[in-house]
This record gives sequence, structure tokens and C-alpha cells, in this order.
Amino acid sequence: MIKYPFNIENNKKDNLKTSSISYKNRGLSLETMLNDSNKYYLFIDKAIIYKKPTPIHIVKTNKENKITEAFFEKPSTSDYNGLYKGKYIDFEAKETKSKTSFNLKNINSKQLKHLYKVDEMGGISFIIVYFTALNDIFFYSTKNLKEYISKSKRNSIPIDEFIKKGRKIEISLYPILDYLVFIDELL
Amino acid sequence: MIKYPFNIENNKKDNLKTSSISYKNRGLSLETMLNDSNKYYLFIDKAIIYKKPTPIHIVKTNKENKITEAFFEKPSTSDYNGLYKGKYIDFEAKETKSKTSFNLKNINSKQLKHLYKVDEMGGISFIIVYFTALNDIFFYSTKNLKEYISKSKRNSIPIDEFIKKGRKIEISLYPILDYLVFIDELL
Repeated sequence: MIKYPFNIENNKKDNLKTSSISYKNRGLSLETMLNDSNKYYLFIDKAIIYKKPTPIHIVKTNKENKITEAFFEKPSTSDYNGLYKGKYIDFEAKETKSKTSFNLKNINSKQLKHLYKVDEMGGISFIIVYFTALNDIFFYSTKNLKEYISKSKRNSIPIDEFIKKGRKIEISLYPILDYLVFIDELL
Repeated sequence: MIKYPFNIENNKKDNLKTSSISYKNRGLSLETMLNDSNKYYLFIDKAIIYKKPTPIHIVKTNKENKITEAFFEKPSTSDYNGLYKGKYIDFEAKETKSKTSFNLKNINSKQLKHLYKVDEMGGISFIIVYFTALNDIFFYSTKNLKEYISKSKRNSIPIDEFIKKGRKIEISLYPILDYLVFIDELL
């Protein structure tokens, strides 16, 4: 009957949840946690969200159609997009080693423009920032990002701003990062 | 004042429209026409739709972070997705040399499942099929696709079905393929 690791009895699920603190020391990357969460959302028919493949410029392929020369391109959109409650969802996920702030250089100008445009055109856009040294992960809407950038002269966002205006995503199970709850607040 | 080729006076635009038939002989690929149309939609703030990069599995990179060995992966989602009128849009674009039908083998089972799921979860999904030998391009919704596949035992869709249930996309200018008009009918 059990076809998928997620598909366990509630009882067992709750037991596992109490041990979720162990995740904190596993050193999982934000990408791994988000991909896993998105797989879970897809499995329970909650949302269809995928990480976009990295754009690559292919220079040469051989006879077997194997790529022998290529290079990475700078992305002009964000990392993740998809569908939730009929709405278009779009976000960028970033990790920082800093304990005090998130440097805006981590988001290139094309990506920022893209997030703004999605927000202006009725989509839901945001960023997720993981302060790895603190084990803190924040959901921060494009509206907040826009407001902060327009008001502040700094090229980084202090962690206090994320605490005040963003929402902390607690590491859990099923899914590991339940970031869609914060979208419910925006709808 | 004129910053972009699209940004011309209506007058000139209409003149250009009358010569749009010349496009038919240029042999533009469906991908080229769609990318150009999406650029136009983006420019006039109508929609944000991008072709997803081809998923590639990277085996080796050199010291300069250049890819020296990689191979193409089978896509598990469709080619294009994005935002229109706040809605999530998702579609697959295919060309066929056939003059009579579109072989369903052109859409892999994962992609088909993905299109179905988007439709079921409140997104707008469809396929665009280009019969290159006929110069005919059709918009065909996932609802129609689903109905056809469930009723028919054939592994191809005859062109008559596209004529009857789909919508013909006329080649024009600004944009070359104005496929969003058919989404307006679905909303």
C-alpha cells in the first residue's frame, strides 16, 4: 500500500516530525530542501513548482549527440516557477554565509527586474534566503524587496529586515520547507 | 523616440501587416516564432513567457568552469511556461512534417502527464502544433487533447481534429504568432 516515503500513516508522521531538528545538522543545501518540498507538493497535488534548468550555451556536440563543449549562461529569470491555486508563482532562492545581512549582489539585475515584473503583472513573486551559519531561512516578498531597495541606500539587506518584514520558514518534514503557507497569506 | 522595432506608429504597423505573407516563406522554426512573440508580449507588458532551458546533465567541467562533457536529458515538463493575466500558462510546441496528422509519440508520457496536471490544478495548458509542409499552426487545448486521447485508439491526431477543435494561428506581425488571443477565450 505504501508507494512513496511521504505516504505514511499520520501517527508515524508525527513521530518523525518531533525529530525534525536533526535536519538542522545534515547540511542540506537550500536547493535540495526546495526540490524535495516541491516533489512533495507535486505528490499531494498541492502545487506544480520546478527549478528551471541552468541555461547553457552549447558549442559542440559529437556524433552521439553528447555535448563536448559548452558554457554556463547568466540566467535572466529566477530559479523556480510554477502553479499554485491557479496562480503563477516565481521565486529566487539564495544561500548566504553571512550572519548579519544578505548582499543584493547575489541577485543579478535581470533577475531582480524579472521578479518585479511578475509582481506587477499579477503573479506571486518572492525570494527565499538561507543564512547557513545561523540555520535561518526566510520568505521575503518582492513587494518588501522593492520597498527596501527603493528606500535604502545599502546594497545589502540586514537580517533584522527579514525578521521584521519576512517570514521565517521552519525546517520540518512533509515538506521540509513549507513555504506555500506564506503565499496563502498573500492571496 | 523609437527604441525598439516593435514600437512603431500604427500606420506603419498596418502596412507591415499586409506584407506578413512573406513570413510564410522564410522557413522560421516554430521555436523562433514563439520566442519572438514572447519577447513582444514581454515588451508590451502583456505576458511573461519563456522557453525553459533544455535540461542537461553535466559530467565534467574544466578549471575555467567550462563544460567539457555533458548530455541531454529527457524533459519531464513542457517547453514553455509563464504568466498571463495573473494565470499560470504552460505549453508544449511541436513541429511535424506530416501533412495529415500529428503523431502523439512527439510528446513523451511525462510531458503529457504534466500538461494534464496543470489543467487539473487550474492552470492554462495547451499544445501548439506546426504542420511545416502545410504552413498551418494550431492551438489545441489540453482539455481537447485529453478528450481525444481518451476516446480514440489512434496514436496520432488527424489534422481534421485540429481544424475542428483547435484554433488556427495565423502568421502575422507584432507578434508573429498571437496565440494569447485563444487563451482569452478559455478564461
